Amino acid sequence: MSAAVLCTGSEITRGEITDTNSSWLASRLTAIGFEVTAVEAVDDERGRIVSALGRLGEAHDVLVCTGGLGPTTDDLTAECAALAAGLALVRDPGSIEAMRDRFRRLGRTMVASNVKQADLPSGARILPNPIGTAPGFSVRVGRALAFFLPGVPVEMTRMFDDHVEPEIRAIAPATTFQVRLRTFGKPESTVGEMLRGIEQAHPGVTVGYRASFPEIEVKLLGRGRSSVEARERAERAAEDARRRLGAAMFGEGETTLVQAVASALRARGLWLAVAESCTGGLLAHLLTSAPASDYLAAAFVTYSNEAKTRLLGVPPELIVEHGAVSEPVARAMASGAAAATGAEVAVAITGIAGPTGGTPEKPVGLVHWAVKHPGGVAARHRVFALDRRRVQRIAAFAALDLVRTSL
Amino acid sequence: MSAAVLCTGSEITRGEITDTNSSWLASRLTAIGFEVTAVEAVDDERGRIVSALGRLGEAHDVLVCTGGLGPTTDDLTAECAALAAGLALVRDPGSIEAMRDRFRRLGRTMVASNVKQADLPSGARILPNPIGTAPGFSVRVGRALAFFLPGVPVEMTRMFDDHVEPEIRAIAPATTFQVRLRTFGKPESTVGEMLRGIEQAHPGVTVGYRASFPEIEVKLLGRGRSSVEARERAERAAEDARRRLGAAMFGEGETTLVQAVASALRARGLWLAVAESCTGGLLAHLLTSAPASDYLAAAFVTYSNEAKTRLLGVPPELIVEHGAVSEPVARAMASGAAAATGAEVAVAITGIAGPTGGTPEKPVGLVHWAVKHPGGVAARHRVFALDRRRVQRIAAFAALDLVRTSL
Repeated sequence: MSAAVLCTGSEITRGEITDTNSSWLASRLTAIGFEVTAVEAVDDERGRIVSALGRLGEAHDVLVCTGGLGPTTDDLTAECAALAAGLALVRDPGSIEAMRDRFRRLGRTMVASNVKQADLPSGARILPNPIGTAPGFSVRVGRALAFFLPGVPVEMTRMFDDHVEPEIRAIAPATTFQVRLRTFGKPESTVGEMLRGIEQAHPGVTVGYRASFPEIEVKLLGRGRSSVEARERAERAAEDARRRLGAAMFGEGETTLVQAVASALRARGLWLAVAESCTGGLLAHLLTSAPASDYLAAAFVTYSNEAKTRLLGVPPELIVEHGAVSEPVARAMASGAAAATGAEVAVAITGIAGPTGGTPEKPVGLVHWAVKHPGGVAARHRVFALDRRRVQRIAAFAALDLVRTSL
Repeated sequence: MSAAVLCTGSEITRGEITDTNSSWLASRLTAIGFEVTAVEAVDDERGRIVSALGRLGEAHDVLVCTGGLGPTTDDLTAECAALAAGLALVRDPGSIEAMRDRFRRLGRTMVASNVKQADLPSGARILPNPIGTAPGFSVRVGRALAFFLPGVPVEMTRMFDDHVEPEIRAIAPATTFQVRLRTFGKPESTVGEMLRGIEQAHPGVTVGYRASFPEIEVKLLGRGRSSVEARERAERAAEDARRRLGAAMFGEGETTLVQAVASALRARGLWLAVAESCTGGLLAHLLTSAPASDYLAAAFVTYSNEAKTRLLGVPPELIVEHGAVSEPVARAMASGAAAATGAEVAVAITGIAGPTGGTPEKPVGLVHWAVKHPGGVAARHRVFALDRRRVQRIAAFAALDLVRTSL
């Protein structure tokens, strides 16, 4: 069964606001079991709203629309819904009464323009709005059961939970199950090669990829005649995929690379120190996106050679001999950060993030990283042919991944 | 002239990611002078992509599509564009060569699935991708000049700037001009009050607001019978708005708060040191989003009390007496960072980012920040009733803003 989302409002089509209602609704409809195939926004223009409603109503089983229920002249949704459904627009006395009550409670007077908010398609089911003025409604448009909700996110989500979800859950097919595997270190094309043929080997399973730089997430969506069958199919394919991905996979579902590293450190009671040059604090920032005070000792951003020497004790002659971007300096930064903080594990990054500063021997994008851990020191390097922001991001992830695989 | 935006990808229609490309494109197309009347997302299904392209191509002058240009089997855009345009799909040798070059530079081998990314509609104009693998292209679909760009935001925006904007600016009705003023420190409603009545005072000018947390951007869009008139109107309104906003405005156009601070430091030849506790490296990361080696001495992430004492020389008794989250400790961290690095200016942040760690006297969200500068020390504090991520972000911006206003 398919579903669509339609948001009305010129503020969205002009890009004046980022519409968060759409992805919230799409995510909820998907989780309930619908296949959401269209998410659209249309400007405040009668003809275009009516035509979008008609088209989406013909093609879907469920349609959720937000916005355009307010009191001003550019709020056209109820009128357009009536046109698309072939119904008259009639004033609903119950909604007028509810509005009058609400204004009385707020100590305000209802103005004439509010009355328009009670003009709804004849025969529509009214969806009361407990925290705002505009009522919502549901009505059949084409083959779709269509729901019309206010655009204000807090009202929209509350009314979806109260009125829409219970009604559509009763008609939803419970036949999909998704497993998400998270990888780092291989480009999307290589991950695709590693999983080549998995759809053929596991009928009823669709493989999707999502690149959320620098991670590649693999999504295995199982479909079946029952939710048990869908789940079994997805799980079997996931088992196969885990084996193929090996160490490229660092976690599943909502697990981030930072969480994988944090868990490994916590499980062994180890403290981590961080020394960053070209990543400029990004690695520390990623680690502290969640509470980290039980494993993160301290972090240093030592951008200049002087800071590397002064704060981390990197010998100046090492920098002169090998350059600041070199394996010996990365190793010395890691050792220095461990010594300065007393941490058992230390990770260091030094590189040329660009856009300038490269040489023929050491091009922009060259990054060295090293991890000092209880068993020794590991060091790696790569040239990342990316812009500054992405060199920093992939370098921070690569260093984190070396902490993970070193433990 | 009208424009539409189409994003392809089941990750969007399933609500797995919030699509930021759409509002960025809608905003840019509007600023260039197009009326954007449809912003749509469709899942990775051939028939639906072709039908959306056909329908939007008939109804608009310009169509910008993102996503689906990758190497995997769910990347269908080029094939669907060819179908919608009634063209054959042909392999472009130039694009293959560019990809091969790119892989060579990266020290990687091109795999078979990458080759598919060079299969483009016959006669399409190729839009090179300087920072990624997939080339874009443009082709006429119906009456629309249609552009197809990758879904990765950094590639998409770059290619829009390089290839799409110059081409569509030539056909756009040149009757608008936009000035963007950037503010920090006042909520959107207060900025709105400060600018109340500006549209009435300046006919032909529309004021828009864009909240890009924690900044509020003010957009003044002038319309006129000629581009000169549109520009004059927007500039006159901007002059008025600058006067009303005063110190709340830190820059214009693309200028970031970091750039404003960096310029002020560079102009006076001052070095900056950073000491962060609850922001965990975010401030250093923001500063190093652009090259910063000519003003950033070093940064410390001193999460624990021990690190504050060991690395910044904060007296343990100060922490015992006032607590780690206090004005005296923020001041001592700033002084310690200056002393450890020799920098003339130092900024320090200490706070409780949450979600736990608050007390009745010091609730979650309490942040102290201090700036040591040649004229003395400035200190501020606030309770930010926000989630962890946004407490960190607004605290980093507030500290940066105190550096700006202290200089």
